[in-house]
Amino acid sequence: MAGLKEYYTVKLHDTDAAGILFYANQFKMAHDMYEQFLTRIGFALRERFTIRDFSMPIVHAEADYHQPLQVGDTIEIALSVEKIGTTSFSLKYQMSDLDGISVGIVQTVHVTIDLETGKKIKLPVPFREKLMEMAKKTT
Amino acid sequence: MAGLKEYYTVKLHDTDAAGILFYANQFKMAHDMYEQFLTRIGFALRERFTIRDFSMPIVHAEADYHQPLQVGDTIEIALSVEKIGTTSFSLKYQMSDLDGISVGIVQTVHVTIDLETGKKIKLPVPFREKLMEMAKKTT
Amino acid sequence: MAGLKEYYTVKLHDTDAAGILFYANQFKMAHDMYEQFLTRIGFALRERFTIRDFSMPIVHAEADYHQPLQVGDTIEIALSVEKIGTTSFSLKYQMSDLDGISVGIVQTVHVTIDLETGKKIKLPVPFREKLMEMAKKTT
Amino acid sequence: MAGLKEYYTVKLHDTDAAGILFYANQFKMAHDMYEQFLTRIGFALRERFTIRDFSMPIVHAEADYHQPLQVGDTIEIALSVEKIGTTSFSLKYQMSDLDGISVGIVQTVHVTIDLETGKKIKLPVPFREKLMEMAKKTT
Repeated sequence: MAGLKEYYTVKLHDTDAAGILFYANQFKMAHDMYEQFLTRIGFALRERFTIRDFSMPIVHAEADYHQPLQVGDTIEIALSVEKIGTTSFSLKYQMSDLDGISVGIVQTVHVTIDLETGKKIKLPVPFREKLMEMAKKTT
Repeated sequence: MAGLKEYYTVKLHDTDAAGILFYANQFKMAHDMYEQFLTRIGFALRERFTIRDFSMPIVHAEADYHQPLQVGDTIEIALSVEKIGTTSFSLKYQMSDLDGISVGIVQTVHVTIDLETGKKIKLPVPFREKLMEMAKKTT
Repeated sequence: MAGLKEYYTVKLHDTDAAGILFYANQFKMAHDMYEQFLTRIGFALRERFTIRDFSMPIVHAEADYHQPLQVGDTIEIALSVEKIGTTSFSLKYQMSDLDGISVGIVQTVHVTIDLETGKKIKLPVPFREKLMEMAKKTT
Repeated sequence: MAGLKEYYTVKLHDTDAAGILFYANQFKMAHDMYEQFLTRIGFALRERFTIRDFSMPIVHAEADYHQPLQVGDTIEIALSVEKIGTTSFSLKYQMSDLDGISVGIVQTVHVTIDLETGKKIKLPVPFREKLMEMAKKTT
């Protein structure tokens, strides 16, 4: 799935005085990929903020750290749609070095909410369809 | 445990264009608390980097998001020692608003490694003792 | 001017793999102080975003770096109102170690704009008065 | 100078609750470009940290903000070598939208120091030569 994979080079500001990636920044790297994913499936964040019909906040996130990353390291991030529920969906970000060795994993769980009421709503159909399409491509 | 609780006021740079805390920054807030904790028990990061006998990298982290946080919100962060293993330990950060309502939780799993070899080692005894002391106070 | 001085302890995520404060983070530290300042004079950012009558974007910022800062270093940040113009104002943030030695300086220039039109407007009178009051206290 | 220009798409974590780029993050964007520049001229940060012969800390930085940037905006960043002194050099980062309109500028002043003594040293000759070569290409 070339289209859901991107390369990322670790920046100095991603690291800390321990000399390696600061743990919270693995979540930032994953979110950069998520933003590209949303743009790809026609639900770019920028438009979300304008249209304001629904939003998809993260309610749970987790990460594993397999290898320390240093400034200048280039990794590949592969996004896959893991689960599509009624009012939620889960994404996985597999980070690997250029030899294909896992350096880390991020997983996020999102719920869809109505921006007027702040309540959970079912995944809007066009959004759900796009997720399903991507799920097929990524599993 | 007054000593393991701290207040934190959400800064503008913790938020994003959705108007609320950017999810990765909840991990930053937890780490700020962790740094205070290490200083308190006599294992400040600053000295870790100088002494370089062992380090305690994070191998797993997860967070739940219960309430959106906005700039200027003041929350309380309570750190507790959840688990002390042979070569690892787990910490929990309970974030609550000033009415005591949970706004989020962070959990981190750390392993102790020898900085020369990069291999896992048993928790050094003085460090283990400090963790156990804190565990008693926080559960 | 005790009220416009605050202490700040450098966090791990403020540093990078060079072992010291990442330069952009000196601007973050200054902004943290600015947010406290706005709250103090009754123009907290949080309310700005709700009331939406005017905003005060930064049009210029600069910093000098006098001493490298490491994780765990505690510094004092002193904010002063440097200049009050017709449609702009300037703030200065003097950062010093606990011996009073300068570690760095940040300066920011803000303009006041109407949020409806996006055009520059004169400093609203109540805001200008507060700035003048603080300017007297800080020079 | 195609080689010293790069595109950058504003990420959600670059923005804040005001809906636009947080001012300090313009400095982060510039530094990302700087890291590419150093790699290009054969002085990648990664090797700097290993070789540890000299470093080039930033002693002054400034930015102008011409247009607000929102999540998803793609800009071009053009780096130019502005000045080469005896113990210092200056770089400029011109940020423009895709119509060529300036959205902001960053400038940084670096000094070369010996990592053993922490004292300023003359720009090492091979580094100086590379800067001069780039200066010719970028002015």
